[in-house]
Amino acid sequence: MSSSVGNRLKVQLFGQSHSRGLGVVIDGLPAGEEIDLARVVEFLRRRMGGRNAYSTKRAELDMPEILSGIVDNKTCGAPLCAIFENTNTRGSDYDELRAVPRPSHADYVAFVKHRGHNDVSGGGHFSGRLTLPLCFAGAVCLQLLERRGVTVDAHIHSIAGIMDEPFDGLPVNGDFPTVNKDAGEKMISSIETAAAEGDSVGGVVECGAWGLPAGLGGPIFDNIESRLAYGLFAIPAVKGVEFGAGFASAGMRGSRYNDPFYMDQGAVKTKTNNSGGVLGGISNGMPVLFRTAFKPTPSISLPQESVNLVTGRDATLNVKGRHDPCIVPRAVPCVIATAAIVIFDIVLEGV
Amino acid sequence: MSSSVGNRLKVQLFGQSHSRGLGVVIDGLPAGEEIDLARVVEFLRRRMGGRNAYSTKRAELDMPEILSGIVDNKTCGAPLCAIFENTNTRGSDYDELRAVPRPSHADYVAFVKHRGHNDVSGGGHFSGRLTLPLCFAGAVCLQLLERRGVTVDAHIHSIAGIMDEPFDGLPVNGDFPTVNKDAGEKMISSIETAAAEGDSVGGVVECGAWGLPAGLGGPIFDNIESRLAYGLFAIPAVKGVEFGAGFASAGMRGSRYNDPFYMDQGAVKTKTNNSGGVLGGISNGMPVLFRTAFKPTPSISLPQESVNLVTGRDATLNVKGRHDPCIVPRAVPCVIATAAIVIFDIVLEGV
Amino acid sequence: MSSSVGNRLKVQLFGQSHSRGLGVVIDGLPAGEEIDLARVVEFLRRRMGGRNAYSTKRAELDMPEILSGIVDNKTCGAPLCAIFENTNTRGSDYDELRAVPRPSHADYVAFVKHRGHNDVSGGGHFSGRLTLPLCFAGAVCLQLLERRGVTVDAHIHSIAGIMDEPFDGLPVNGDFPTVNKDAGEKMISSIETAAAEGDSVGGVVECGAWGLPAGLGGPIFDNIESRLAYGLFAIPAVKGVEFGAGFASAGMRGSRYNDPFYMDQGAVKTKTNNSGGVLGGISNGMPVLFRTAFKPTPSISLPQESVNLVTGRDATLNVKGRHDPCIVPRAVPCVIATAAIVIFDIVLEGV
Amino acid sequence: MSSSVGNRLKVQLFGQSHSRGLGVVIDGLPAGEEIDLARVVEFLRRRMGGRNAYSTKRAELDMPEILSGIVDNKTCGAPLCAIFENTNTRGSDYDELRAVPRPSHADYVAFVKHRGHNDVSGGGHFSGRLTLPLCFAGAVCLQLLERRGVTVDAHIHSIAGIMDEPFDGLPVNGDFPTVNKDAGEKMISSIETAAAEGDSVGGVVECGAWGLPAGLGGPIFDNIESRLAYGLFAIPAVKGVEFGAGFASAGMRGSRYNDPFYMDQGAVKTKTNNSGGVLGGISNGMPVLFRTAFKPTPSISLPQESVNLVTGRDATLNVKGRHDPCIVPRAVPCVIATAAIVIFDIVLEGV
Repeated sequence: MSSSVGNRLKVQLFGQSHSRGLGVVIDGLPAGEEIDLARVVEFLRRRMGGRNAYSTKRAELDMPEILSGIVDNKTCGAPLCAIFENTNTRGSDYDELRAVPRPSHADYVAFVKHRGHNDVSGGGHFSGRLTLPLCFAGAVCLQLLERRGVTVDAHIHSIAGIMDEPFDGLPVNGDFPTVNKDAGEKMISSIETAAAEGDSVGGVVECGAWGLPAGLGGPIFDNIESRLAYGLFAIPAVKGVEFGAGFASAGMRGSRYNDPFYMDQGAVKTKTNNSGGVLGGISNGMPVLFRTAFKPTPSISLPQESVNLVTGRDATLNVKGRHDPCIVPRAVPCVIATAAIVIFDIVLEGV
Repeated sequence: MSSSVGNRLKVQLFGQSHSRGLGVVIDGLPAGEEIDLARVVEFLRRRMGGRNAYSTKRAELDMPEILSGIVDNKTCGAPLCAIFENTNTRGSDYDELRAVPRPSHADYVAFVKHRGHNDVSGGGHFSGRLTLPLCFAGAVCLQLLERRGVTVDAHIHSIAGIMDEPFDGLPVNGDFPTVNKDAGEKMISSIETAAAEGDSVGGVVECGAWGLPAGLGGPIFDNIESRLAYGLFAIPAVKGVEFGAGFASAGMRGSRYNDPFYMDQGAVKTKTNNSGGVLGGISNGMPVLFRTAFKPTPSISLPQESVNLVTGRDATLNVKGRHDPCIVPRAVPCVIATAAIVIFDIVLEGV
Repeated sequence: MSSSVGNRLKVQLFGQSHSRGLGVVIDGLPAGEEIDLARVVEFLRRRMGGRNAYSTKRAELDMPEILSGIVDNKTCGAPLCAIFENTNTRGSDYDELRAVPRPSHADYVAFVKHRGHNDVSGGGHFSGRLTLPLCFAGAVCLQLLERRGVTVDAHIHSIAGIMDEPFDGLPVNGDFPTVNKDAGEKMISSIETAAAEGDSVGGVVECGAWGLPAGLGGPIFDNIESRLAYGLFAIPAVKGVEFGAGFASAGMRGSRYNDPFYMDQGAVKTKTNNSGGVLGGISNGMPVLFRTAFKPTPSISLPQESVNLVTGRDATLNVKGRHDPCIVPRAVPCVIATAAIVIFDIVLEGV
Repeated sequence: MSSSVGNRLKVQLFGQSHSRGLGVVIDGLPAGEEIDLARVVEFLRRRMGGRNAYSTKRAELDMPEILSGIVDNKTCGAPLCAIFENTNTRGSDYDELRAVPRPSHADYVAFVKHRGHNDVSGGGHFSGRLTLPLCFAGAVCLQLLERRGVTVDAHIHSIAGIMDEPFDGLPVNGDFPTVNKDAGEKMISSIETAAAEGDSVGGVVECGAWGLPAGLGGPIFDNIESRLAYGLFAIPAVKGVEFGAGFASAGMRGSRYNDPFYMDQGAVKTKTNNSGGVLGGISNGMPVLFRTAFKPTPSISLPQESVNLVTGRDATLNVKGRHDPCIVPRAVPCVIATAAIVIFDIVLEGV
């Protein structure tokens, strides 16, 4: 029942899809860190919709306003608060949803949890729009991590079953970040086909962190995998998280799975990275690698079976409004941002 | 860097594989709850090794001693502390590991994190033996959940790629809990083959919670999936967690994935359960279902490539000692216990 | 290193004295609670300066802007964010303080903690202005407490050694809340005398909560007194907190101190309330009563001995700028607000 | 509703007065720290009763058994668990208290909170005996602080209104630690007089920490004073906490209260220490000084007015059993221990 995360770094999100504003408070940032806001805005652009066939038509400028925490472009040790105005809202699209919840969307549970007092408009606090301040916080953490020699990046691992090539951490920025361009075009094509049919598709985002020293994190609870998974499942539509070989490791033999150690110019490394950079909950000095599964967008324009919460009868739902036929491209910066926040929190704790 | 978990219910584990004792403190249990210790011990028996081909030879009695928190078989509102003695220890087996870490085991990172001061013997605090007090805490929570109409159970979903049948929550207790006995026997056979070759295998545990009302949990952080994943990744050897259709949902269309709502005698239900009982981080009244991937046991008797941390040179490792060729059967109660702890914590918070 | 407080209810403050804005995020409010913003603003007026001899000349309108969490005047279950603009700022007054810290003010420690990167202007994040969003959060909690039959109020117990009469909880609102008007006038006179001499005075605020059931709170840590004290010491200038008979109890005999129980129409009550409504960290059904000591305002216009952090030499400081000669009258709503936040958090946990 | 404290260092207490055992788990201790158990036991001796006129007759050996966290006398990075057996128990003394609660004791609220399921015997979890594992944890932290150049010590500031001399931090160990021996003898005499009359007396403990660098702690919540007060109010019988000049500062002028800065061989110091070493919640490099007020022991042998919770009628109570006529001498190590735990937690966070 909380919209905050972090041990040393506390990130508190607030706002609803159609509230006056939304934003984030980041408490615990070290003082004296320069923040390049232009680069933050550039990162936010990666999750912006409204520019192509696979995103919604909603296109707000999404410029952050810094209320506190930064003086002369540097953090001052006080909590950083950034807010975004909600200007382009179309609340009337959601009138029907007050009574008839969208299948596999949060409408029904929000109604139950808040006994009908939840903000229905645009999904309220459950809206994907809350990932905007999340990405802001992540973009800030990315800069602080970079200054400490750590990079975090991600690519689209698959959409609708179409796979990208393996990811080595080299930048694949852009609206549709795949290593292999052809694979990317096939994915886009599959999204467009689904969209044309009033349907949606899901996908997998693969993300990694390079440059972490060995010894971060800890055993049992509060380990790196637990904390990353905790953050990642907070992104709307995530249904699975795996590290290194992940679920595939369940079908492997130990002799094949185990990552052999070797000395590389005085440093301990492993020849493979099936462990995804984490052993016993602690970083081992190899890249931390994980994949996050996104379900297909629940809002589709095909008619769906639902119920009317007012009449207590079965009902058919025709969803109006603007929705992405696939949220995976816009989810990539959300995964990066979440990872950056969690990892910077872990870095602040130190070895 | 913490061995505790929970918001309303705090579960603090302590102990090392070969320390004088290990145990758990459970803070926040409601007062006046009867605890049937015989049933707790029966549950602990499910994770006990030493009785068949696929478990280690180590066989301790593992009887909990209740230090506090229970008076006349009932909780008294004070923290419940249960301890276990470590009697059957064979520390000398681990001498070599002080210098040469086992691949894909926590030896190396524990050494780095604690600058050589970690308890090497038996894996120290990183040992699977720490799941004993974890299971104790889970067994207590299971009883309190049952009293509130909630059951939590699990089966072996797959081992070494051999799949069990779908799980409907009917009890599949026993040392090797599969729905389909033939599938179970094939799994045991694959474990025995790997063991005979000095190797190990992994698998997947599927777990569910039945009887939860809609409205538990919350949006964004502290949602049900985040909290369960946080707990589950703390179990040694877990490399992936997925809910409902999980990673498979990434390849599905929305029209196929979305769970249609319908009215069932006044209650809102869904015809399918691809969401695994969780929408927007909140329970929707359907069973909460998830799978947890376990890597193959890292300790294998085949020779492995490693490094010598003292000499700084490459080294070959031959692991001695007793190790399960597959930890999945003993992991089943660990998954149930973790889920019971996290879910009872969420139940205590209420809708 | 945190600007947030609370277990069930998380209150996160942000902003600096002269940043673009400041505000608060309140996470965990129950949904469906009507918030009367006019009454919130009325409460904020109680901490407003600029209207008399004993307050600073700074007079901003201090109208909250609600960014999120309220729909149609009711909480919607999402975090409530309220912000305030900073319009009337006079940063140049503080130039000298960058090098020469004010005695008994936070200037020096903020400089050390943040290695010179702290926001000096107006005291930055350490400014008493941060009590504005604190009072906003408290005013919201007061309304929710009132709806549950709990009232929280306070009076000026003493200023400069001049004592008010005992407090029975009847409202003593107003700019200068004393039970006895004559005592209040003497206090005002002592403040004016000190101000005329370029000096300042301190005082004590006494606060109580009426209507709490017995059984709230808990033993050892997280008890009512610990949590209230934790919150109260976060108000600038607080140097002491005591409950019931407080420090005076140290000089009493048990036979005189102990509060005799008696039955009052089926309810257990005590004849005296030296315990201040708290036994063993838990409410006993009597009013929760405590006093908070405020030191004299550190910013005085008399010349003071200090050091120059740039030159590393002793220096004489002449503080310019506008400062209250006594912050106690404006501290009254801050104490009430803090108590309301902490007590509502405890009420949400329940017995 | 929690028996744990700390951010980086988690200290979890468990046990009841007459449960099988009681103890503490300390999670977050750095690895490789040597712990001198003989000195720990020596510290525990300071809170031991049974040896003189002003303590109870109960005299257990109170030897800690280390279950985990220490290998070869050094911390190993895993949680340290120490337990104590309860051997000398006299449960029957408490039979009457099940129905008739002691005035100003926790009997009544424990009954209400836990709906009659609380452990009545010896005060259960509310017993002063829980300060034994608290002192253990504090004794461990004292050694780690000492290694970092920080000492924490305390003296009896007053008992029954009889004052000791000012405290400069020089060791005043012993059963009855006062700076001035004559004052100490007068205090003992006043305790004996009260005891002879079946009554009890209270007092004040003054404690300080020497050697802390400037810059520890933080603004608003989680500041040094809030955290110390949070810990101190968890000690049974504490009714007030004040820092530096404390409540007396409320009667002082700013010109008299403010601590003038001066340079002392390159270091910034203050000529007086009315601030008790804390400005804006942050250490200023001067000794951190505070006082804690203890009420008289509630258990007195004089007849007292109470109620019978079974019959719902007024009742007269005659308390049997062994009780200290003054808990202040035994409270001194409890204050030191609590301060050591909280301060070491703050030291671990760093500037």
